[in-house]
Amino acid sequence: MKHSFRVMTLFAAIFALQSSQAAQPTKGESEVDYRQSLYTVIGGNFHPLGAMAEGKMPFNAADAKVRAERIAFLAPMLKEAFPADSNGVGHTAAKPEIWTDNVEFNKALQALIDRSAALVVAANSGDESKIKAAVQDTGKACKGCHDKYRVKE
Amino acid sequence: MKHSFRVMTLFAAIFALQSSQAAQPTKGESEVDYRQSLYTVIGGNFHPLGAMAEGKMPFNAADAKVRAERIAFLAPMLKEAFPADSNGVGHTAAKPEIWTDNVEFNKALQALIDRSAALVVAANSGDESKIKAAVQDTGKACKGCHDKYRVKE
Repeated sequence: MKHSFRVMTLFAAIFALQSSQAAQPTKGESEVDYRQSLYTVIGGNFHPLGAMAEGKMPFNAADAKVRAERIAFLAPMLKEAFPADSNGVGHTAAKPEIWTDNVEFNKALQALIDRSAALVVAANSGDESKIKAAVQDTGKACKGCHDKYRVKE
Repeated sequence: MKHSFRVMTLFAAIFALQSSQAAQPTKGESEVDYRQSLYTVIGGNFHPLGAMAEGKMPFNAADAKVRAERIAFLAPMLKEAFPADSNGVGHTAAKPEIWTDNVEFNKALQALIDRSAALVVAANSGDESKIKAAVQDTGKACKGCHDKYRVKE
């Protein structure tokens, strides 16, 4: 009993501050925030890979490997990031077709997952041209899905 | 030449939309956004573990294992998430002591990394009481750092 109370106090404390920073978000708003955060972390790791592929940043095989592994770890987490109650909530750019055209959307998401797994294989080879080609393939999977399922602003 | 141009067009297209959604963020703002996103993804996975430890959600060993692995994967990424130019930028709650008291901050961050690694060991055991204890230890690492290095609002 005493133990349970202590645990509850601990977790209340961890999440209390987050909640007090703004009005308590709804479940859908929290889901959108989680989804956008996941994309931000994926994008933040993809960005330097894109810059290497473009020649805007010196190629670094070790860094490319770390970034590739992160993207391949994070991409499958997107499968849980589109729950039904996050459709049309808040400042989302996610089109309703994600939910109404779910079979096609899942194929597009699977393409990202598959290509990011292939990116890791390329990154493990250390071969610059293979890595850059795999970055490009992964980028096409990003763009393919954005073009179809993200609102243009 | 033609190939390079195509690559550049692809990456420009991927990131263009993100940029057009708001004024182009500064480097520091992008860093804060990345850091907060990383915490949101960690928190989104820690939240159900906390709820299981509190008894607010039924204990699920398989889900706990997945969540633990994600947190242990993501926590070390925080080591790169406090670059100097993100100090005091935008809506950050990160106190300047993170940068001025960096040795102590790094110890607090390392505690999270170590405890989330121990959480994975506990999760792999499948033992409910060990997992709940490890969740509590991980939560204490979160709270310890928040109490010291996050602005109270």
